[in-house]
Amino acid sequence: MATLTSNRYGKAQVRLSKITRNEHEHLFEEITVRALLSGDFNDTYTKGDNSPVLPTDTIKNTVYALAKTHDLNAPEAFALTLANHYIDRVPAADTAEVNIDQRIWQRMTFDGSTHAIAFTGDKSEKRTASVTKQRDADVNVTGGISDLPILKTTDSAFVGFLKDEYTVLPEERDRIMATKLTATWTYNSADVTEFNESYAAIREALLKTFANHDSESLQHTLFAMGEAALAACPHISKIYMVMPNVHNFPFDLGRFGMENNNEIFFPADEPHGYIDGTVAR
Amino acid sequence: MATLTSNRYGKAQVRLSKITRNEHEHLFEEITVRALLSGDFNDTYTKGDNSPVLPTDTIKNTVYALAKTHDLNAPEAFALTLANHYIDRVPAADTAEVNIDQRIWQRMTFDGSTHAIAFTGDKSEKRTASVTKQRDADVNVTGGISDLPILKTTDSAFVGFLKDEYTVLPEERDRIMATKLTATWTYNSADVTEFNESYAAIREALLKTFANHDSESLQHTLFAMGEAALAACPHISKIYMVMPNVHNFPFDLGRFGMENNNEIFFPADEPHGYIDGTVAR
Amino acid sequence: MATLTSNRYGKAQVRLSKITRNEHEHLFEEITVRALLSGDFNDTYTKGDNSPVLPTDTIKNTVYALAKTHDLNAPEAFALTLANHYIDRVPAADTAEVNIDQRIWQRMTFDGSTHAIAFTGDKSEKRTASVTKQRDADVNVTGGISDLPILKTTDSAFVGFLKDEYTVLPEERDRIMATKLTATWTYNSADVTEFNESYAAIREALLKTFANHDSESLQHTLFAMGEAALAACPHISKIYMVMPNVHNFPFDLGRFGMENNNEIFFPADEPHGYIDGTVAR
Amino acid sequence: MATLTSNRYGKAQVRLSKITRNEHEHLFEEITVRALLSGDFNDTYTKGDNSPVLPTDTIKNTVYALAKTHDLNAPEAFALTLANHYIDRVPAADTAEVNIDQRIWQRMTFDGSTHAIAFTGDKSEKRTASVTKQRDADVNVTGGISDLPILKTTDSAFVGFLKDEYTVLPEERDRIMATKLTATWTYNSADVTEFNESYAAIREALLKTFANHDSESLQHTLFAMGEAALAACPHISKIYMVMPNVHNFPFDLGRFGMENNNEIFFPADEPHGYIDGTVAR
Repeated sequence: MATLTSNRYGKAQVRLSKITRNEHEHLFEEITVRALLSGDFNDTYTKGDNSPVLPTDTIKNTVYALAKTHDLNAPEAFALTLANHYIDRVPAADTAEVNIDQRIWQRMTFDGSTHAIAFTGDKSEKRTASVTKQRDADVNVTGGISDLPILKTTDSAFVGFLKDEYTVLPEERDRIMATKLTATWTYNSADVTEFNESYAAIREALLKTFANHDSESLQHTLFAMGEAALAACPHISKIYMVMPNVHNFPFDLGRFGMENNNEIFFPADEPHGYIDGTVAR
Repeated sequence: MATLTSNRYGKAQVRLSKITRNEHEHLFEEITVRALLSGDFNDTYTKGDNSPVLPTDTIKNTVYALAKTHDLNAPEAFALTLANHYIDRVPAADTAEVNIDQRIWQRMTFDGSTHAIAFTGDKSEKRTASVTKQRDADVNVTGGISDLPILKTTDSAFVGFLKDEYTVLPEERDRIMATKLTATWTYNSADVTEFNESYAAIREALLKTFANHDSESLQHTLFAMGEAALAACPHISKIYMVMPNVHNFPFDLGRFGMENNNEIFFPADEPHGYIDGTVAR
Repeated sequence: MATLTSNRYGKAQVRLSKITRNEHEHLFEEITVRALLSGDFNDTYTKGDNSPVLPTDTIKNTVYALAKTHDLNAPEAFALTLANHYIDRVPAADTAEVNIDQRIWQRMTFDGSTHAIAFTGDKSEKRTASVTKQRDADVNVTGGISDLPILKTTDSAFVGFLKDEYTVLPEERDRIMATKLTATWTYNSADVTEFNESYAAIREALLKTFANHDSESLQHTLFAMGEAALAACPHISKIYMVMPNVHNFPFDLGRFGMENNNEIFFPADEPHGYIDGTVAR
Repeated sequence: MATLTSNRYGKAQVRLSKITRNEHEHLFEEITVRALLSGDFNDTYTKGDNSPVLPTDTIKNTVYALAKTHDLNAPEAFALTLANHYIDRVPAADTAEVNIDQRIWQRMTFDGSTHAIAFTGDKSEKRTASVTKQRDADVNVTGGISDLPILKTTDSAFVGFLKDEYTVLPEERDRIMATKLTATWTYNSADVTEFNESYAAIREALLKTFANHDSESLQHTLFAMGEAALAACPHISKIYMVMPNVHNFPFDLGRFGMENNNEIFFPADEPHGYIDGTVAR
């Protein structure tokens, strides 16, 4: 006798762009949305009864329709709008999860002036937001940053670690520290209105701490960054960070009678160290 | 006052290949490993004290050293070996998580005979395994399949669904059903010895059910596949499946005075439907 | 004074799938097409005059319309059909280039029998074809294979090479040889009708030679494969192959007091050796 | 009788990073190199004679060794250094091709000041350079930009085009124009010393023209950009550009009784228009 013990359905990779024509310049925004519902869809799975299921095509259309009538500039707010809408339209749904990735388009600048209608969009860094709305319970709202490669050339050490029979890593007081930052912070409530100010303050605190921290390990820096983020923004209760250790290995020039004074490296994407952690108040 | 409320560290994308030289033919195996530890590493994050931390370089070396002395053919078993080793070597670790992706290399075949030393490796499908070992508690072992595109040209419908103001999808009794299957099943215990037989039986049950099911929706087929997997293998307690709906949209030939009798389509990777679910005994 | 000295335009990544409903089973085919035109489009670039330009949207629509009325099973033949059509419809075009990648969907097999309507599509290997049609000159037709990882565990050496001050590579008589094969062969004429037989014969010759060749280098094996392909198929005049050397490096277990008898490796995608060459009659 | 009619070999995806420790701040540079040789390697392919072949491992090591003693800041100059070195070391080589992609790391900025040791590296845009050095002939040097997404929200039209039976595209006087720019310009000679100034001037000319051009088509804008690049830099003789048309399609909100005044779009990566062209003096 088999039972359905979890279920989710919806639409992913819904890409949308929007032009807002202000008097002196245009805004251009691009987001990618994933919206999933779960709840009492048992008969759909076990009996093929689709009556409780709003099509994923409709879930997609809704994103475009609501983008016409709502602001996109705080993705957290638009995710809330979408999640509330889906819970309202689909009686069988107990939970709606909406994730938004906002692509960063930057206005072109020439001779010190920004251009009114032209943009570059070459950043891997994305601003992220997620909302998990439960019908009869609290809503959970997060903001975040993803895929931001950051690096410092010094002020990073790794010494005094545990050793076993397979440990050959030398202690190192001066090394490159490089990571691809993903951070997700949880707002105290859905009633926050300062999503954009919070994003800016937290991003600045994370980067400034990374740059200035005297690091004994990526873990050590991760915690300091989390502490700084909490200090910078009263609206969040915790922050989760993933910080892979992207290695730049010194290249062995000694084989050619040359010295490598910590200057020539080969960067490698795999394997990489993996560090994560949550810092809370 | 900031506190560390979760932590993990380790090495990811550790790639390893192994040749086993049997009398009449060679085996060739390739795996990618991620191994993470978590536990009482508070001082590492908050004070920069690395004394409890076995370097991620050592975590990587361990994979290669143990691959020399252990069989790789059941990735679940090798993941158990690794997880037990890490828990033993790192006193601060409460939990070790090991994930293995096994690449499928197939022996070349010519004129009906398999070749002794030559292989093709062009499959996106991977066999997966994971072990989560807690120091003073049970171990959790899973097996799985990932990234296997499967498709049927008929015997798939989607009708009778919920409609709202943004619903324009037509009811459809005959459509392509395509997905990229990821399935993860949980073993009843770590003492199972039939990992390879279980993998083969579950994979066959999943595909055969997908092929033969009279489908009212992807959800409907997902459940049937899960039921069949549980029936095919007594060693597992549940199975989790992710089955995105990879759309093949009929192309509108009517604009050119031509009929499209459900024969010409454009496949699209984004957006896609997203379906998941867990089927348990 | 600036001049336009080369031009091309068209549509790329046009994906199309087709079901053919035979009596006892369905065929399912999927191709990705790129179609480019070049010729006398000078005024389009220099003056903004679009009158000679058939829209890229139309170039795309044409692929779907002609797929309705033509067979897809030999991509070379369909590429010819498309190229001839575009040259016919666009008076300004001197040249039409059409490239087709055919995805390999394999019929599912259960208990020794193939299934009528269910397929797996997990192969990175693609069959390729290209046609370059010039209005008043010969047409060039190629067939090919791309993205096929192949590997042999022995019968591969690399010794006796040139050395300079940066050479530290040891001579090696027994190593893994791994590559990701791309091969493109040129047909003697567009009147060939045996595209599918040629593809099968050449693919078999390439793989069999790779498997059985006593290799002194990837270059050495590349030439032997090319020779075998020419011998296997009288309809082609030459074959171009790209064979990156995908390294599997022996992992240094000696540091842990263990011997690595050419059995434990770490595979790496970057950097990789790069080898190409053309073998002609 | 088979003959080798073309050959190349070398190393690709050689990644290198370098720290330069200036008094008040560090420089950090990262490049990816591909270096290929071709020439009289016939016996290597046909007879397995490796005596003319410098190993690809050595080709790789050379990149690291010469990066120690040479500046990386103009990739064109470093590519010249490498190409000359390889031609010198490998008597059988007639030609050396070196391609360099330079990753753009940007110094972090806080409160208006740049940081001495911390960088972000999240740009897809790369600076590129290539050198093709023939032993007894001229050397060809190019500079370039790749993978730079650029977009304008208006001042782009496409009307007055050729129509056939598969043309349904509406004429459009106001549309989004988006592309991912790749440009490669050819220097008049290898004796240029202003590679960095040329790069900056050409990049500015390309973007400014894209932003300000009143566009009748992507072709039209491509030519204007090429003209502007030639005008901005006397050291180059021609420029080749690839500008795919990355579509942002208006989403049909009319089905829901809503108007879409050219404001809500769905961006799609495939299919895309493809435009290229060369503009020369």
